[in-house]
Amino acid sequence: MLGSIPNERLQEALNAGSDLARTLLDELAARTADPPGVTRIAYGAGERDACDMMAKAAGAWHADIVFDFAGNQIISVPGLDRSRMICIGSHLDSVPHGGNFDGAAGVVLGLAAQAVMAHLDRQPIFDLVVLCLRAEESCWFPHSYIGSKTALGRLDPSVLDTVRRSDSGRTLADHMREEGFDPDAVREGRRVIDPARIAAFLEPHIEQGPILVADNAPLGLVTDIRGSFRFRDARCFGTYAHSGATPLALRRDAMVATAELIMAMQSEWERLERAGHDLVVTFGEVGTDPARHGFSIVPGETRLCIDVRSRDQVTLDRARTGLVALSHDIAARRQVRFELGPVTTSAPTAMSRPLLKRLETAAKSCGIDPRIMQSGAGHDAATFAQAGVPSGMIFIRNEKGSHNPDEDMDWADFNRALALVMALMDQPAELWPPGGRGTGDGREADGAGESGTD
Amino acid sequence: MLGSIPNERLQEALNAGSDLARTLLDELAARTADPPGVTRIAYGAGERDACDMMAKAAGAWHADIVFDFAGNQIISVPGLDRSRMICIGSHLDSVPHGGNFDGAAGVVLGLAAQAVMAHLDRQPIFDLVVLCLRAEESCWFPHSYIGSKTALGRLDPSVLDTVRRSDSGRTLADHMREEGFDPDAVREGRRVIDPARIAAFLEPHIEQGPILVADNAPLGLVTDIRGSFRFRDARCFGTYAHSGATPLALRRDAMVATAELIMAMQSEWERLERAGHDLVVTFGEVGTDPARHGFSIVPGETRLCIDVRSRDQVTLDRARTGLVALSHDIAARRQVRFELGPVTTSAPTAMSRPLLKRLETAAKSCGIDPRIMQSGAGHDAATFAQAGVPSGMIFIRNEKGSHNPDEDMDWADFNRALALVMALMDQPAELWPPGGRGTGDGREADGAGESGTD
Repeated sequence: MLGSIPNERLQEALNAGSDLARTLLDELAARTADPPGVTRIAYGAGERDACDMMAKAAGAWHADIVFDFAGNQIISVPGLDRSRMICIGSHLDSVPHGGNFDGAAGVVLGLAAQAVMAHLDRQPIFDLVVLCLRAEESCWFPHSYIGSKTALGRLDPSVLDTVRRSDSGRTLADHMREEGFDPDAVREGRRVIDPARIAAFLEPHIEQGPILVADNAPLGLVTDIRGSFRFRDARCFGTYAHSGATPLALRRDAMVATAELIMAMQSEWERLERAGHDLVVTFGEVGTDPARHGFSIVPGETRLCIDVRSRDQVTLDRARTGLVALSHDIAARRQVRFELGPVTTSAPTAMSRPLLKRLETAAKSCGIDPRIMQSGAGHDAATFAQAGVPSGMIFIRNEKGSHNPDEDMDWADFNRALALVMALMDQPAELWPPGGRGTGDGREADGAGESGTD
Repeated sequence: MLGSIPNERLQEALNAGSDLARTLLDELAARTADPPGVTRIAYGAGERDACDMMAKAAGAWHADIVFDFAGNQIISVPGLDRSRMICIGSHLDSVPHGGNFDGAAGVVLGLAAQAVMAHLDRQPIFDLVVLCLRAEESCWFPHSYIGSKTALGRLDPSVLDTVRRSDSGRTLADHMREEGFDPDAVREGRRVIDPARIAAFLEPHIEQGPILVADNAPLGLVTDIRGSFRFRDARCFGTYAHSGATPLALRRDAMVATAELIMAMQSEWERLERAGHDLVVTFGEVGTDPARHGFSIVPGETRLCIDVRSRDQVTLDRARTGLVALSHDIAARRQVRFELGPVTTSAPTAMSRPLLKRLETAAKSCGIDPRIMQSGAGHDAATFAQAGVPSGMIFIRNEKGSHNPDEDMDWADFNRALALVMALMDQPAELWPPGGRGTGDGREADGAGESGTD
């Protein structure tokens, strides 16, 4: 146990792990720079380079490094008990011109943990496995959690041939093959890691919202990952008309109808929130049609994008019913037509409660007071949890949001997260579950239903 | 007087005028085709070709044809009384991919009137002058009524060097010179037609709204041209944030704030309309920023365009005060910032009441029951009226709106308008005013205040 190690030596090892992580992140930022920010395309050069860098770093302690059939990179060091494993990881792709930390910080934290053990010349309690997952940012392939789903043999096979990368227009199977992987094995649900052996999957991640900063808390421990429904390509159709020459009674103004829908959903949200329900409602992309709009033209068409999330499926269903009813009501009154278009959904997912408790205990032992919170954003940890793997997430404070070049992390907070992970791994074997409860055949039933939840 | 002419011969002459107009419009559509629709750029090839076609047609009756210093084409036939003139005209430019009738229909109607007189071998009561005006569509040069202002020597000289054409980026003076005209003379306020001699300016024009169709009336007679204020490039600034990770209380959502402003102005409009005020409010261009928005991003910025019109300056002032107050209130509550940006305005302008009465009398004499209505859109007739010229407009029913390839005109309605104009011109000399009340020095005080009112 690490408790037997002199404090100074332990601190030295933690520093070595932290230094490695920092060097890796700096090098990663330089190698995948695409000003402003970084771009690491899923199954593209940036993601490949990132995998390569992680593998090279782990060579220092002779880790076992393999790719699975889908190209997820698995970096393992053997534990005292080889029947179980602790997995730490996240994804290595980024949004275009994104920040350096979303995803990558979780992977390098896993490597830092391996480095600490190597520095101390100790073996972890179980196999310690760092997972470099693929294709999490759904801006590339509009389907959620491709890396974790393929790692666990849970990807709906039809996704391989139907989902296309936004920049190339080519299928996921194509891009997998191009990178040297085996989409046919993925199609058959083959996998390299056995979920039944995973005692815990941990995903450290920068917080993507302002809650930890607002709370003055360095770390968060996640209770739930919100589910969602999205209408990514909704339209409102009215009638284009001359702004000066068309009186109120004869207008069919698509923009006014859209504004009314936005405000109605905002009121619905405020009402549900006051009643204690968990919900966020966002119209992230809204606009009149640049090809036809004009300052003196009543808008005849708008495009809008609706993202609704909750940790509670009942609230999601209620909000969706409300949205549809409001759109019908507004359309009838304003003589316009809403076409909400295809919907994508993801299910709310709870993190493991026992693991959460033990993360809290570990935090206290390090003198950290974490905030217990939900994740508004989607993460690969949801796939592991849905496969029955005890899963948890550690959020690292970040005041700049994510998916932008400014995302950031105070290095002291990263070090706190690393110390927390080491303290967790130092908990005695009898506290860990005997292995994942993963059935191994929980492949998603409906690929269309789980699309893009980052 | 035309009353002395046998009905059959008169009808034959009207048919000849109508046929000429139709031929000209068909030829114009073919020569300036830019599918879908037509494009006649102000001070560009399409406008030039259109002027040329009109001049060639008027050659058939040996009209006197000159350009003024700004390139407005003046096509005159001498009247019995040469001290006064009746001007009929409109503009020959179009919006990009616009319709064939906006503007051009008014010019060819003037030529048709000359053709009728020529066919009858009669002289009109006064000089009959067709005006082919330049640059009315403010999509090219964002300043209103350039053709009529230059024709009357009323253009703010600074406009020549400050207003640039949207496609070329070059100044109005540049483009005038390129077409062979004389911006220096325009700068000095020189003109060819003397407003004091104009007994009436008539602008026939397709209606740009749906009122005549809704009313089942073939023609409209215009009482007023609405004034306006516009914020063509307003912005709302909030803070970009992750849609899932940012709770309600910490959001500064620019799109929600924009939607609230749209709905608040809509309510204000409905309230004022119920109280009997004349107003239209249009947010014609609205949108999140395509360079930064995303389905999972709380919008940090929107662009919006606000067009407010009324025939009553007090109502305009009230709506503008209301808009500013609402934007401040919403900004404070939602922690966003509105930048309304530059404003452009135009003054409401009344058409001549005596001329309107005589147009009504002329319509009745032709068995036409016109709708008495205001013009929601801006027209060159406003400049003539502001210069003290007795001015009137005749709207021709059109069910397809304007500024689009589908704008249309039932040919029978055009013929009604032609008959109406002939009947008006047949009214005895003593009913006509002694000449325009134009002072000849009414140059606009502030060019910035009158910008783009079509």
